[in-house]
Amino acid sequence: MTKRTLTGIIAYTVTPFSSHEEVNLEALNILIDDLIDSGADAIAALGSAGECAYLDDDEWALVASHTIEYVNGRVPVIIGISELTTKKAVSRAIFSNGLGADAIMVSPFSYYRLSEDEIYEHYATISQAVSIPIMIYNNPATCGVDMSPEFMLSMVNDIDNATMIKESSGDIQRMRKLQRLSKGSVPFFNGCNYLALDAFNAGAVGWCTAAPCLLGSLPKRLLDEVNNGKAEIAKLLFEQQLPLLEFIVAGGLASTVKAGLEIKGLSVGLARRPLKPLTSDRKQALKKIMTSIESDKDDKHY
Amino acid sequence: MTKRTLTGIIAYTVTPFSSHEEVNLEALNILIDDLIDSGADAIAALGSAGECAYLDDDEWALVASHTIEYVNGRVPVIIGISELTTKKAVSRAIFSNGLGADAIMVSPFSYYRLSEDEIYEHYATISQAVSIPIMIYNNPATCGVDMSPEFMLSMVNDIDNATMIKESSGDIQRMRKLQRLSKGSVPFFNGCNYLALDAFNAGAVGWCTAAPCLLGSLPKRLLDEVNNGKAEIAKLLFEQQLPLLEFIVAGGLASTVKAGLEIKGLSVGLARRPLKPLTSDRKQALKKIMTSIESDKDDKHY
Amino acid sequence: MTKRTLTGIIAYTVTPFSSHEEVNLEALNILIDDLIDSGADAIAALGSAGECAYLDDDEWALVASHTIEYVNGRVPVIIGISELTTKKAVSRAIFSNGLGADAIMVSPFSYYRLSEDEIYEHYATISQAVSIPIMIYNNPATCGVDMSPEFMLSMVNDIDNATMIKESSGDIQRMRKLQRLSKGSVPFFNGCNYLALDAFNAGAVGWCTAAPCLLGSLPKRLLDEVNNGKAEIAKLLFEQQLPLLEFIVAGGLASTVKAGLEIKGLSVGLARRPLKPLTSDRKQALKKIMTSIESDKDDKHY
Amino acid sequence: MTKRTLTGIIAYTVTPFSSHEEVNLEALNILIDDLIDSGADAIAALGSAGECAYLDDDEWALVASHTIEYVNGRVPVIIGISELTTKKAVSRAIFSNGLGADAIMVSPFSYYRLSEDEIYEHYATISQAVSIPIMIYNNPATCGVDMSPEFMLSMVNDIDNATMIKESSGDIQRMRKLQRLSKGSVPFFNGCNYLALDAFNAGAVGWCTAAPCLLGSLPKRLLDEVNNGKAEIAKLLFEQQLPLLEFIVAGGLASTVKAGLEIKGLSVGLARRPLKPLTSDRKQALKKIMTSIESDKDDKHY
Repeated sequence: MTKRTLTGIIAYTVTPFSSHEEVNLEALNILIDDLIDSGADAIAALGSAGECAYLDDDEWALVASHTIEYVNGRVPVIIGISELTTKKAVSRAIFSNGLGADAIMVSPFSYYRLSEDEIYEHYATISQAVSIPIMIYNNPATCGVDMSPEFMLSMVNDIDNATMIKESSGDIQRMRKLQRLSKGSVPFFNGCNYLALDAFNAGAVGWCTAAPCLLGSLPKRLLDEVNNGKAEIAKLLFEQQLPLLEFIVAGGLASTVKAGLEIKGLSVGLARRPLKPLTSDRKQALKKIMTSIESDKDDKHY
Repeated sequence: MTKRTLTGIIAYTVTPFSSHEEVNLEALNILIDDLIDSGADAIAALGSAGECAYLDDDEWALVASHTIEYVNGRVPVIIGISELTTKKAVSRAIFSNGLGADAIMVSPFSYYRLSEDEIYEHYATISQAVSIPIMIYNNPATCGVDMSPEFMLSMVNDIDNATMIKESSGDIQRMRKLQRLSKGSVPFFNGCNYLALDAFNAGAVGWCTAAPCLLGSLPKRLLDEVNNGKAEIAKLLFEQQLPLLEFIVAGGLASTVKAGLEIKGLSVGLARRPLKPLTSDRKQALKKIMTSIESDKDDKHY
Repeated sequence: MTKRTLTGIIAYTVTPFSSHEEVNLEALNILIDDLIDSGADAIAALGSAGECAYLDDDEWALVASHTIEYVNGRVPVIIGISELTTKKAVSRAIFSNGLGADAIMVSPFSYYRLSEDEIYEHYATISQAVSIPIMIYNNPATCGVDMSPEFMLSMVNDIDNATMIKESSGDIQRMRKLQRLSKGSVPFFNGCNYLALDAFNAGAVGWCTAAPCLLGSLPKRLLDEVNNGKAEIAKLLFEQQLPLLEFIVAGGLASTVKAGLEIKGLSVGLARRPLKPLTSDRKQALKKIMTSIESDKDDKHY
Repeated sequence: MTKRTLTGIIAYTVTPFSSHEEVNLEALNILIDDLIDSGADAIAALGSAGECAYLDDDEWALVASHTIEYVNGRVPVIIGISELTTKKAVSRAIFSNGLGADAIMVSPFSYYRLSEDEIYEHYATISQAVSIPIMIYNNPATCGVDMSPEFMLSMVNDIDNATMIKESSGDIQRMRKLQRLSKGSVPFFNGCNYLALDAFNAGAVGWCTAAPCLLGSLPKRLLDEVNNGKAEIAKLLFEQQLPLLEFIVAGGLASTVKAGLEIKGLSVGLARRPLKPLTSDRKQALKKIMTSIESDKDDKHY
């Protein structure tokens, strides 16, 4: 497979469970097909939404290998790696590379807060072990460390396979900085759902998001209108999606997306404990938002 | 073994590695003997200093079982459990209980930030699975969630085996609150090294610390003088230790304690990557502090 | 004068001082003329850039009255009010109203952190004393309190003269929220220079900024291109200005704008102590940024 | 008057108002007498509790001059100075010096966040203008800047009249640092009520507090027992006072102390707007705490 350039809607899967908490590959297949049908430019497995941190080793390997196999080259596949030790991150990186992943997304998940030196060597060591691109992923809310635009750009500069950045801190100025300091030469992705439109405007080449699980083709249409220079329509499409984007971020991403998929009729089980399912009030609120967007989609012709 | 009340110096071990990064049980034995000889009132394995988050499953089980076996009832043994899933935390709790641990210390290590509801059920589920006391461990710097004194006391009240609290947030007022709100009925431990004396003054029944690995009997002597009502001598002893206590907290606990043990002549290997060893400057600074405390110990007769 | 709707570039003046630290009205006149010539849609005196907090009562009154008189209806004038007591804020509001100010901008500057109740009554009391619109100004970095979009919208809803919002927290999501929750009915202004383009895209009706003091007509041209739907040109214009926008925010707004005006040849004196003038290194860096933008302006024809 | 060393209970007055919001000197006299009768080692006017930030120039001067005159050398008097400009701070410092104040307490109250350079020059300039000691006062919650122990000690070292430190950040480790880094040579005061006992244990030479307004001689008795080496009695006395100490900090210091004085029968008016008086629920809670401490005082004989 030739190296593909990643751009556009990078759609994140959840990890569906059966009633006995086993990984449910049938549901995963349906979800993957739906995402590709909705125009996803790539499939990303084992991100935050995929409960990467809550799977055991066998489950993790199963989801990684099955996703790559089932997608079967229809679109690129990215595998998320959030490990506490460099050793395990390297092992999963090699495994993903061997399976044929198009890229890996690596975050410096931490117990002890890591220094920039420690983070740098973590990425450098992983890079030496693989031949596929690494997306540097900054998500201080889950990972406990916060990487500045300057530091991430220096790693892209110095570490061979580190070629992309995913910014999820929620600060639009950082994306402007990535764009400005790299003179547009380093592709960066937005990982903060409610910043989707602002991030595209700031130069993000893609949007890493689990929202297509619930919103279908709407995120892709937003991107298309941005690319077509239809700023007004893009704004309307974004505002249509915004209530859901804010809701899934506020409510615990994995639990909320899983609840939304159940509402849509796909049984994917609950997020792993200690994560709790949505309360029935929250489920009702989610249903209401989803219904309102759905009827909007039917009524309006942007 | 009858249930023992935990108080005093709870000494935390590091997890020594051989040159090939295997767990070095001989070095662990020497360390355990030294800690008991220095007056440790209990041994705690697999805390932050023990690199709990950086061991694989087999290594974790080996350290837990070997520590309990080797201590062999000389003092109580506490096993630290910091797991992302409730399932794995329960499994390790049952394992520790089965091995004969006297207590387990449980922290709500998190990827997604947990709600109080989620944390509560995490502890409640673990409690139902064991028959030994649980020490609720608050350490926002490593675990990503911060539990208030009020919330932790409510768990002690409602969850059967949750009987103790370890506070490591660094805020002395919280210890005063634990003492005041529980009217002194809930034993709490200090986990913040540089607050040791203030915590005892505020009513802490013990000090959870890896400092005895480097300071030998000094922490115990501090406690003894506090208990003897010798406030002035306690203060002098504390100020003697304070430079080292601040140093090991600032510098990455596991890496720093391991560097200090090497200085003392016990080969324990390096902390696991991505954690990095001390720079040679920092090692020199540590050596200087340790030497100065040592000569102090010889010269003065408090 | 009929009530005018405020939109567009709200240009903030500095308060020029003579060599003896007296207010220099001649320099202020030149600055005001330059700003109006550069297309400012309104002039705002006594904001942060105007050192509102560092003037004595007489100086404050002089700047307020002179600005209104000298602008003389060419564009609307807004007077900034950042007072610690409600009494003094009311007094300055009445004074501004009496002078013929078109609006006042009021921030809840605080010594003791204020509750929402206290802030609400502060604004309500001021509103009762005047007949001109109040712009609610959120700037947690200088004022010590942070008002949520929801709270500010509730004040616009309940307090008669509170009709506009200025958001300076630096979080683009808040502007999206102001827009979405008010369904676009409440005009809000961006007060965070480096968010200028993102804020317009999010629905801001104006940009409150001292940047035109140094950038001349560039901010206005940015807005024009946004209004003309020329997204690409707007982006280029914004990126051209961004280095300066980030620089003046990072470096102490009043000191930096004053240094920049000196570079441009207008003598405005230094910011009041304890504020310090720019170091010569910073002054050089500012000069370089300004020169680079200037040559850009000449070369390119967007 | 010879220079007196300040130590012990530094009792802060509120600024009483009559029903028409004028400064009520009769009530101030009664309060001062009560505080001295309760064993205050010094009287401090125009601190946070004294609404320094909410008085106009004449009121400020009146309270400063009257306090010094009325105390009339019975104990030392400290005047608090929290000004936004160096010029005004210098003016008030000279005025206080001229009136015969024994010391001034200076905090770097700020609108724009100040750099260490700016803060340093603020203090240095004030120092050159006076011949009395300056207490450097760190209170990030009200002043918007936070000074580290290291920085404050460097100012004590370099600036002639800067001889004392008041630490109100609420972090006991900072007091330990002040003590350790200065080898006990720089007198520091605790300004955080709920840390009173811990601060004395850490080496604070005094407690700056408005609590004696409501607690009478209890704070002084706490200090006496600490000085007598009666750790157990000191702890009991501290725990007796702690509910009130936490309450007045949580509730808005000036409003709460004024409400408490009303409960005790001294009419002192309300805190200035925008500060609001206690709700009736909070007033009831305060009354209950005060009554419970009062009855305790009668019953127990420590």
